[in-house]
Amino acid sequence: MKLSELLGIELPIIQAPMAGAQGHALAVAVSNAGALGSIGCATLGVDAMRSELAAIKAGTGGPFNVNFFCHVPPVPSTERESAWRAALLPYYRKYGIDPEKIPAGPGRAPFSAEAADVLDEIRPAVVSFHFGLPPKELLVRVKRLGAKILSSATTVDEALWLEAHGVDAIVAQGVEAGGHRGMFLSDDLTTQAGTFALLPQVVRAVKLPVIAAGGIVDAQGVAAAMELGAAGVQIGTAFLLCPEATISAVHRAALKSKAARHTALTNLFTGRPARGIMNYVMKELGPINSAAPAFPLATSAIAPLRAKAEAEGSGDFSPLWSGQNASGCKEIPAAQLTRELAAGL
Amino acid sequence: MKLSELLGIELPIIQAPMAGAQGHALAVAVSNAGALGSIGCATLGVDAMRSELAAIKAGTGGPFNVNFFCHVPPVPSTERESAWRAALLPYYRKYGIDPEKIPAGPGRAPFSAEAADVLDEIRPAVVSFHFGLPPKELLVRVKRLGAKILSSATTVDEALWLEAHGVDAIVAQGVEAGGHRGMFLSDDLTTQAGTFALLPQVVRAVKLPVIAAGGIVDAQGVAAAMELGAAGVQIGTAFLLCPEATISAVHRAALKSKAARHTALTNLFTGRPARGIMNYVMKELGPINSAAPAFPLATSAIAPLRAKAEAEGSGDFSPLWSGQNASGCKEIPAAQLTRELAAGL
Repeated sequence: MKLSELLGIELPIIQAPMAGAQGHALAVAVSNAGALGSIGCATLGVDAMRSELAAIKAGTGGPFNVNFFCHVPPVPSTERESAWRAALLPYYRKYGIDPEKIPAGPGRAPFSAEAADVLDEIRPAVVSFHFGLPPKELLVRVKRLGAKILSSATTVDEALWLEAHGVDAIVAQGVEAGGHRGMFLSDDLTTQAGTFALLPQVVRAVKLPVIAAGGIVDAQGVAAAMELGAAGVQIGTAFLLCPEATISAVHRAALKSKAARHTALTNLFTGRPARGIMNYVMKELGPINSAAPAFPLATSAIAPLRAKAEAEGSGDFSPLWSGQNASGCKEIPAAQLTRELAAGL
Repeated sequence: MKLSELLGIELPIIQAPMAGAQGHALAVAVSNAGALGSIGCATLGVDAMRSELAAIKAGTGGPFNVNFFCHVPPVPSTERESAWRAALLPYYRKYGIDPEKIPAGPGRAPFSAEAADVLDEIRPAVVSFHFGLPPKELLVRVKRLGAKILSSATTVDEALWLEAHGVDAIVAQGVEAGGHRGMFLSDDLTTQAGTFALLPQVVRAVKLPVIAAGGIVDAQGVAAAMELGAAGVQIGTAFLLCPEATISAVHRAALKSKAARHTALTNLFTGRPARGIMNYVMKELGPINSAAPAFPLATSAIAPLRAKAEAEGSGDFSPLWSGQNASGCKEIPAAQLTRELAAGL
C-alpha cells in the first residue's frame, strides 16, 4: 500500500514531530496543506497535551501524527548527578545560580497510560514513537484505536525489530537528522549511518514502507530520497524557521547563521545523543560527555543555565537542535514550504 | 562545463582511488568502460608507481586519474610510539611478535617531486589529491602538465578553500564514504556530514562542478546524487568485490558478511580517521584511540599483527575499509558494474 493511502494523506511528507520547538499551529498548517502534521508530546504534561491535541483536531480535518518518547526511565544516581553538577559548577557560579536549589526530576516522560487516555479522546490517525516502542499493552491499546504506528530505525537491525513488533511504517533516520537519535538497540554512536547508506539498506531489508529522514530539506532532497526507495519523507529542520514554529530567538538566529553549518550529536542537554548546532557548552564540555546523567535526567541540571543565558540573548547553554543541513530553512509559512517540498515527489 | 567534458570522459562516474585495494587492472577496466578509472599511489614507492601507471596507460586509451595523499609528515614522537606499542603489547605477546624488532617508518609518503617526475612521463588526464593540496610549486607543476586537478572536501569550508586554491572540480566526501576521510582544515570528527547534507551545501557554495562521494553504490544512488546537484559521482566500496580489485580474502569475506553493516571511523591503522568494518582491534581499543601515533606513523606498529592474523585467516587486525553501504558490492567485472551504475545518470 502506498504511504499516502496508509496514512490517509495526500502528500507522503511528514513534518517531523519536534518537542519543544512547536505547538499545534505547525501541525495544523502542514496537515491542512495535505501532508502529515505532527506534534511531539515528550515535553508536555497530560493537560497541555490534551489542549494541544484538541487544538490540532479543531484546526484541521486531515490526519495528524502524535509523537511520544518511549524510553525506560532510569534510576537516578545521586553520585552521577552530583558529579555532573560539579562539572557545571563554574558556569553556575558565573550566572549566580545556587546548584542546591535546582529542582530535580526528569524533563521528559515516556508514553504512559495517562497519555493513552488522551489518545482515546482525540483518536489521531497516526501515532509515532521514538526510542523503540512502548510496552506491549500500551501499543495494543493505541493500535485498537485504529491509529497507524510509526517508529524510527537508525540501523537495519532496528528496522527489522520494528517490523517484527508491529509498526505500520518505518522512519529510517539518517545521521544527518536534527534532534534526538531514535536509536534503541545500541547506544554505540558508530552504528549511526548517513541517509544515503541507511535508507536503501532498510528499504531492502523490510517489507514495510520506509520514510526517509535526515538531511532532506528541499524538493531536490525529496526527489533524491524517493530515488533511493523511500515511500515518503520526514522533514524537521526545514520547518524550524516557519512562523508556526515556536523556537527561541537564539535558536532562530543560530539556524540563520553560518554557525548552523557545524552541528554535533550531544548528550549534554538531556542525556541522550541529539543533534544540535555546536555552541559554547558543547565546546567546553565536549558534545558527548560521559559524566552527563542518563536520559532524561541531564535536563534539569542545565536548564537554569539555559534560562539565564537566553535572558541575556545567548544560546551558549541552549539545545539548538538542527540537522546537518539547515540550508533549506526558510522563513515562509509551513503550508508554502510543504507545497515547495511536494514539487520533489 | 560539464564534468564529462572537463575530464574527457563519457560517463561522469569516477572509480574512487583505493590505495592498497587495487592495482592498474581496476583503473583500466573502468576507464575502458567510459568512466574515470583511478589509482591511489599513497602506498606505492616510485618504481611501483611508475610500473602501475605505465600499465594503465598501456591498458586504456581513455583518461585516468592518479591519486596522492598530501599530508605533512609528522615529527615522530618516541614517547607516543612507545605508549602505542605498550597498548598493543598484549596482542604482540599473543602472536609471538617482538615489539623491538618491528621496522619503524611511515607507511605512506605524501606527493613529492619524485612522484611529479613520474607524472611528467605518464601525463595522466586527471590528478586527484586527498588531505588538501600539495605545496604550491608541486601543484603548479602538475597543472602545467595539463592534468585536471581534483581534491576532496568534507565541509563547506574545505570546498571553498579548494576552489580558492585552484582545483578544477571538488569531490564532496560524505561521512558514509569508506577509507580515509579527506578532512584537512579541521581534525574534529563532528564536522563530518552525511552526503545528503554535505553535497547540496557544497553545490550551493562553489561555482565548480561537485562530485558526490559517500554511500553511493548503485544506479539509484547515482540518480539520487544527481538530483542533489552533483555533476558526477565517485564510487569506491561498490568496486571492492570486482575481480579486478586486489583486497585480501579476509576483507572480501567481511564485505560479503552482515558484519559490513557496522563500520566506524578509526585511526588505529594509520593515525588518521578512515572508515572500515568494525573488527576485533577496533572493539578492543576503541575505533578512535588518542594514543595512536600521528598519520602515517601508526601504520608500522599494527602491520605485523595484521600479517600474523591474516596468515591465520583472521581480519582481527586488518583495516577492512568500507563505506557505510556495502550493499551495492557485486562480484562482477568492473566494466559491467560501471554500466549498471551509469543507468542512474
